[in-house]
Amino acid sequence: MNKQLIFKKRPVGMPDADTWQLETNPIPDPADGEVLIQHHYVSLDPAMRGWMNDSKSYIEPVQIGDVMRSGSIGVVVKSNNHRTFKEGDVLTGWGGVQQYAVTNGDNWYKVDTNLAPMPMYIGTLGMPGMTAYFGILQEGKIKEGDIVLVSGAAGAVGSIVGQIAKIKGCRVIGIAGGPEKCKYIIDELGFDGAIDYKSENLATALKRECPKGIDVYFDNVGGEILDTALTRLRTRARVVICGAISQYNNKTAVKGPSNYLSLLVNRASMQGMVVMDYAKDYGKAAQEMGMWMMQGKLKSKEDIYEGIENFHETFMRLFSGEKMGKLVLKVKED
Amino acid sequence: MNKQLIFKKRPVGMPDADTWQLETNPIPDPADGEVLIQHHYVSLDPAMRGWMNDSKSYIEPVQIGDVMRSGSIGVVVKSNNHRTFKEGDVLTGWGGVQQYAVTNGDNWYKVDTNLAPMPMYIGTLGMPGMTAYFGILQEGKIKEGDIVLVSGAAGAVGSIVGQIAKIKGCRVIGIAGGPEKCKYIIDELGFDGAIDYKSENLATALKRECPKGIDVYFDNVGGEILDTALTRLRTRARVVICGAISQYNNKTAVKGPSNYLSLLVNRASMQGMVVMDYAKDYGKAAQEMGMWMMQGKLKSKEDIYEGIENFHETFMRLFSGEKMGKLVLKVKED
Repeated sequence: MNKQLIFKKRPVGMPDADTWQLETNPIPDPADGEVLIQHHYVSLDPAMRGWMNDSKSYIEPVQIGDVMRSGSIGVVVKSNNHRTFKEGDVLTGWGGVQQYAVTNGDNWYKVDTNLAPMPMYIGTLGMPGMTAYFGILQEGKIKEGDIVLVSGAAGAVGSIVGQIAKIKGCRVIGIAGGPEKCKYIIDELGFDGAIDYKSENLATALKRECPKGIDVYFDNVGGEILDTALTRLRTRARVVICGAISQYNNKTAVKGPSNYLSLLVNRASMQGMVVMDYAKDYGKAAQEMGMWMMQGKLKSKEDIYEGIENFHETFMRLFSGEKMGKLVLKVKED
Repeated sequence: MNKQLIFKKRPVGMPDADTWQLETNPIPDPADGEVLIQHHYVSLDPAMRGWMNDSKSYIEPVQIGDVMRSGSIGVVVKSNNHRTFKEGDVLTGWGGVQQYAVTNGDNWYKVDTNLAPMPMYIGTLGMPGMTAYFGILQEGKIKEGDIVLVSGAAGAVGSIVGQIAKIKGCRVIGIAGGPEKCKYIIDELGFDGAIDYKSENLATALKRECPKGIDVYFDNVGGEILDTALTRLRTRARVVICGAISQYNNKTAVKGPSNYLSLLVNRASMQGMVVMDYAKDYGKAAQEMGMWMMQGKLKSKEDIYEGIENFHETFMRLFSGEKMGKLVLKVKED
């Protein structure tokens, strides 16, 4: 049987357990040209919260009654499309939160689990890693010597952003929640500085860690952190707007950055990004990041939970911050 | 004697009459290498409000006791620097709100009043015109067919922004206050559409005038207008942050654009600008704009008031909107 997480009710504010319903249905049969994939892992990402709102965005909202959309990785268990994929191939794509998915293979990619374990292909070598790679290089336009600030610094995207900036010769300061994460990004990932937004005054800490200001701010969180970071911009600074996790569960309007006129004063820019725009270059990026990993310059951390039944409480860790690195849910039952 | 407007008190909120004091002092003598300029006109610009705040910005704040900083234009009445400027030369520069200025000539430019009248050299051929030219072309990166929205559309900068966008083959919608200004930008300046923010619901009017959205928004005003414009961005839209006149006299925090995540969804950018960065190209821009004026493609309107004694009430027209085009104060007494 195929356990599927069905989207039942658009949340207002924080999603609760009634937002989804777990259903058990027969495993579908792949039609001619299709393959059946048994999911091992699904990807849990902040962007999923946005897809649940019925509003115009860069992608269609998830519809009530649909399987909850998510990235996923699994193994082909039946193929009626042998020219493209055969049984045993490991594929990653948009399979959704369910144990089995049927697809004609469009937008699914075969990966090599001898090079990296499955969870890494939906993390550092998947969407979050691609977001970090193209976000900091193409949108942030970092160059050697830049002072780079990143929020959500121990997270799936932020941890990679900071490490890539270090590889490129930048000074990197991370903002994270709690002493454990702050220690991790300095000791394990090699950041130059860390700010614990849960215990420190942000403005004071930013002056201490970035006394000369910021050339690039990579924002995953929005809210007060974005607003404070804007006060420290240097001339021609770039702010990359990747996400705003602090605002996704608002019941009232998003908090706009009241210090946005710092953009004017400092001739700075604020640039939004959507990783899908870079899809044609994912392969090249994954290759370069894989090389950095083999050279020990880039570390990847996945925080893996088990059981599709535990989707809701695991998903909520994205917003409580009770996780480290890339959040992954194992949905295959052993 | 030289009537000078001295900056006396940093305003909180709207400047009142006590913000400045008019003083009458002897006309200064130019030292060796200096010239004495009799001002005919001074320029009144929203940016002057920002210079009165004691905060870090792109330029030093005006200090208490100083002559109020402003652009100006006048005639050399005594020159001890004949190699550069001689008596009768018409010069424009940063002379401040006073009837006479002494300078060694640095950052002053000689202009030809046979080609254009003096007030135009502190308007369309001066700072506001340069702001419009470089703002819409270099920062807004307009191309033929773009849909361009501009706020403060009947003002010194906005009116030129819109006309340049028309010259470049864009569809141009202006936001202005009141039916007279809206009629002016359509009938006189050739805009494709106008929105009267004083009488119309902005969101509704924007849907009507920009049903396909906006490629470039040139913002002079900030506040609600910026926030609403953000809801209409097209993919890869550019928002040029030139000013935020609606926020300059706030006693509380600036209103941040709560719809800034439209930048993310639409992969759009918000770019701040300061015209001084383009100083080395002013000459080329003035030449091109002069040509457009001669061809009848670019119209310039100056709203000229008289008497340095009337500075305060004239200056306040910038914020009440009771003026049309470039606000200029004639300070020369006939």
